[in-house]
Amino acid sequence: MNQPAPTITTGPLPASRKVHLPGSLHDIRVPLREIALSDEAPLTVYDSSGPYTDPECQTDIASGLPDLRGAWLRARGDTQAYAGRAVTDADNGFAQGKRLTPRFPVSRQPQRARDGGAVTQLAYARAGIITAEMEYVAIRENEGRLAAAARDGESFGAELPDLVTPEFVRAEIAAGRAIIPANINHPELEPMIIGRNFKVKINANIGNSAVTSSMEEEVEKMVWAIRWGADTVMDLSTGRNIHNIRDWIIRNAPVPIGTVPLYQALEKVGGIAEDLTWEIFRDTLIEQAEQGVDYFTIHAGVRLHIIPMTAKRVTGIVSRGGSIMAKWCLHHHRESFLYEHFEEICDIARAYDVSFSLGDGLRPGSIADANDEAQFAELRTLGELTRIAWARDCQVMIEGPGHVPMHKIKANMEEQLKHCHEAPFYTLGPLTTDIAPGYDHITSAIGAAMIGWFGTAMLCYVTPKEHLGLPDRDDVKTGVITYKLAAHAADLAKGHPGAQRRDDALSRARFEFRWQDQFNLGLDPDTAREMHDETMPAEAHKVAHFCSMCGPKFCSMRISHDIRAQAEQQAGMDRMAELFREGGALYVPQKQDEPVD
Amino acid sequence: MNQPAPTITTGPLPASRKVHLPGSLHDIRVPLREIALSDEAPLTVYDSSGPYTDPECQTDIASGLPDLRGAWLRARGDTQAYAGRAVTDADNGFAQGKRLTPRFPVSRQPQRARDGGAVTQLAYARAGIITAEMEYVAIRENEGRLAAAARDGESFGAELPDLVTPEFVRAEIAAGRAIIPANINHPELEPMIIGRNFKVKINANIGNSAVTSSMEEEVEKMVWAIRWGADTVMDLSTGRNIHNIRDWIIRNAPVPIGTVPLYQALEKVGGIAEDLTWEIFRDTLIEQAEQGVDYFTIHAGVRLHIIPMTAKRVTGIVSRGGSIMAKWCLHHHRESFLYEHFEEICDIARAYDVSFSLGDGLRPGSIADANDEAQFAELRTLGELTRIAWARDCQVMIEGPGHVPMHKIKANMEEQLKHCHEAPFYTLGPLTTDIAPGYDHITSAIGAAMIGWFGTAMLCYVTPKEHLGLPDRDDVKTGVITYKLAAHAADLAKGHPGAQRRDDALSRARFEFRWQDQFNLGLDPDTAREMHDETMPAEAHKVAHFCSMCGPKFCSMRISHDIRAQAEQQAGMDRMAELFREGGALYVPQKQDEPVD
Repeated sequence: MNQPAPTITTGPLPASRKVHLPGSLHDIRVPLREIALSDEAPLTVYDSSGPYTDPECQTDIASGLPDLRGAWLRARGDTQAYAGRAVTDADNGFAQGKRLTPRFPVSRQPQRARDGGAVTQLAYARAGIITAEMEYVAIRENEGRLAAAARDGESFGAELPDLVTPEFVRAEIAAGRAIIPANINHPELEPMIIGRNFKVKINANIGNSAVTSSMEEEVEKMVWAIRWGADTVMDLSTGRNIHNIRDWIIRNAPVPIGTVPLYQALEKVGGIAEDLTWEIFRDTLIEQAEQGVDYFTIHAGVRLHIIPMTAKRVTGIVSRGGSIMAKWCLHHHRESFLYEHFEEICDIARAYDVSFSLGDGLRPGSIADANDEAQFAELRTLGELTRIAWARDCQVMIEGPGHVPMHKIKANMEEQLKHCHEAPFYTLGPLTTDIAPGYDHITSAIGAAMIGWFGTAMLCYVTPKEHLGLPDRDDVKTGVITYKLAAHAADLAKGHPGAQRRDDALSRARFEFRWQDQFNLGLDPDTAREMHDETMPAEAHKVAHFCSMCGPKFCSMRISHDIRAQAEQQAGMDRMAELFREGGALYVPQKQDEPVD
Repeated sequence: MNQPAPTITTGPLPASRKVHLPGSLHDIRVPLREIALSDEAPLTVYDSSGPYTDPECQTDIASGLPDLRGAWLRARGDTQAYAGRAVTDADNGFAQGKRLTPRFPVSRQPQRARDGGAVTQLAYARAGIITAEMEYVAIRENEGRLAAAARDGESFGAELPDLVTPEFVRAEIAAGRAIIPANINHPELEPMIIGRNFKVKINANIGNSAVTSSMEEEVEKMVWAIRWGADTVMDLSTGRNIHNIRDWIIRNAPVPIGTVPLYQALEKVGGIAEDLTWEIFRDTLIEQAEQGVDYFTIHAGVRLHIIPMTAKRVTGIVSRGGSIMAKWCLHHHRESFLYEHFEEICDIARAYDVSFSLGDGLRPGSIADANDEAQFAELRTLGELTRIAWARDCQVMIEGPGHVPMHKIKANMEEQLKHCHEAPFYTLGPLTTDIAPGYDHITSAIGAAMIGWFGTAMLCYVTPKEHLGLPDRDDVKTGVITYKLAAHAADLAKGHPGAQRRDDALSRARFEFRWQDQFNLGLDPDTAREMHDETMPAEAHKVAHFCSMCGPKFCSMRISHDIRAQAEQQAGMDRMAELFREGGALYVPQKQDEPVD
């Protein structure tokens, strides 16, 4: 038995096995997924899925994942264990008895920086140190490639190296252009990097609803999302049991976990925004930092003077964090406590290396509100906060878009680069029209692919249920696959040197009627196989040199093969094409008297 | 009983009724769909669905649709009925007995131009005549708007008028920048226009498979596709009964029907491409023109000297028409009979006003093959053919893309405008990555939205089954809705003056928790309602001022309302925002001593 709870999905993807590459600077093993192919060398691809897809690995959610980073952290010798904050009833929304999700069975002491030091990847990078995390992500980004590939794309100023080196990673982090969200209290993490000069990443949101979710359910949501490619997961839980469920998630998460601490803080004051205080918020930050949350969304850009700019909007303030802070500010007629205490927030973050995701509390919720003064005024504030965080060695990314029509997307990226000093951009969608509820994974994938191309480093997924309800398991998968394809389309267009390998391998398989290879190279082999089987279920058809769309007599791919074979017999089409190019407008056959066939 | 066959979907979309606007030049009634809203004036939108969504209209597929255009055609007096070509056994693939689809019950004589004249919309437009068809599409394009709207967008040289006038339509057609595909033998047609300076349109493909489809099934596929917004439908049938099934489709089609005549011609020669002849092809054109096909895909750009340019491709030739012609050309080592006889093809088309969709037989089938020399050499040939067709008063559009990464999409539009003299572009997708079989409606919606924005006039849909199998009913709907949202995103980005009305209406409904209005304004009200009901089924929740995602305490939209109410009490947020703008960096409250709440 691999799992105590049968609800956790484990096992490799079809035709895939986990392979590990060693480091040369550090004692690390970097996981990749190798897809076996029937008629060519296997293809190695990025693998966000963690140990759950590794049959060699026993996973048990009551034990948590292995302590991958513990030795690295100890080797640095700049952190120390301490008693930590006591968990209170309020942390779990006063859930009692049967309604209380059990605590995670294995207790651990939190770590923090010694002597007020900075234990962030940014501090190390600035000090010229290449950490194990940095080498890990460098190897991971190369996906097993050893050589440069042909370059083709328009990068809009991004500078993608042929191969990512550990030193390149260090330099990008030192410049603030990339982050490795990696709380020192999340040793189970397989590090990943977010930055414009790396592969475009995606985030999936999970979170318990008002209806009680069990901890197995929440862990499974996370495992399911990363199985299909989510690079980070945000736990947006509200209601009861937030603390305990988050413990189960983090202890079992090989990807960075992000949160919006404001949500939990609001629960602690009974959902009354006006009752929030800096002290309650601060306590929540420490609670979550000790648990191992890797990045915090902080809506410190919602300043008092900006709020009135939303008055004429069609959809007002649609970010939950933004609206909570706006309500607080207006009620007290005071500047936001997040803004006023931002330096103290930084001091907490640097002691644990919690990265910031500076929240776009005023992102537009409709086409009508896109790129308005409120949105851009907040963005400029996020730029100010970036400098403050950087001065304290904190890692920063910036949240953006929402609903933005295509012609206004590029301006978002340009304004962000300009005002936020090239800190990585992390955008929701954007949705490119408002008129398709039920299909907003698609309205937003259009915008996500484009903004990813323009330079956004991570795309926050949108599921088909956006605006309508809570995503179920199928919606999560649909959202993740949709965003993986958008991120990949962005990598291709940017000219990422490794991106086209997978397209080419899949297209070769398609052209050569290697059906199984075509399925297995796709982002969702199971769905592709099922769709094929609906029309042509027999096993024999998966080796057929035609498909259901045209049938055997009418297959264009088959005709292309015939053409190629004919042409090759006839002294080679390459030579003919060359002759054509030399001869100009008219094609000169080599042997005019003989028919081709 | 509205229908003899229960499989034909009829009845209005939710909260919608059919309204008709009259012409002022011609005796016409132009259908639109009016969506009733609970708290504001109804919204009138474009309606491709024909009489099937009109409860006032009795539809019976054995009778066909009303003869809408008959009087218009008779009034022009330039056509005449004639005996027409006799239907042969070969036209139906020699289907016999029970396997033969019955003929359409009502027989009619075909019409053609008198005395070798041109009865095309292009000929009339050039002669300064505003036809009923032109006035019809002008009214239709305005969607009931009476006034200009605020302009916002980047049109890349498209010139979208505030309101479309009949004279504008005439001038665009005369310039070759737009077409109205409207065979004189398709009097049931509700005319529509395809051009860069009009709303972006979408096409859905249907067609019987090897497994016998009944005529009801095929008619229902068409009715289902136009219900959700397909502007034209291509019948790509192969196999038996092609002729008779097409009769049933056209007699019941309120939208233009396109075909690839080469497919039927190939059936007539037993599927052996080499056995095709000009005579068989010519006979097929006349057969289909007499039936009322509105546009023909003609792959006349696959010239002998271009074919070798495909030899090095990863996926060769993926267009079925292109591969058939390539095989023929190479086998006979002769120039394509389509190219050599193109002027005669034009003479047939002008006698019936069949528009051309000049086929992209060499479109790329993979990212690796995008924008290669074969593709662009063919495109330039299509530009030559455009001039030939225009010289004979034939209407022309140009087929394009396939698989193209984002950074190579714009070049396609620019090359097409340059070499094809602004004839409308009609593109498949393009798919922006190859790695997501099962999700190619999405990989292609990204490209479709972008190329539509850049200037493509009509987008050919892609369903989730692309590359895998035959689309079923759900796939057709998914493909159509996906492409409607992509076309609409393009209209928004181009700055179409009427496009944002629907987004704004839906966003207002969303902000005001008018759930039913939000569903009804969406492209797919049924799916939106179902998704909402999965989480919050009770009827009461559809009037709730919150939704399932956040619950009552935690709703950002509700908080925004609270903020707005507070601000309005406090002397108005507009004034405060104004003060802020006047005052510069710091917000000056009007009454500093009083708290806001």
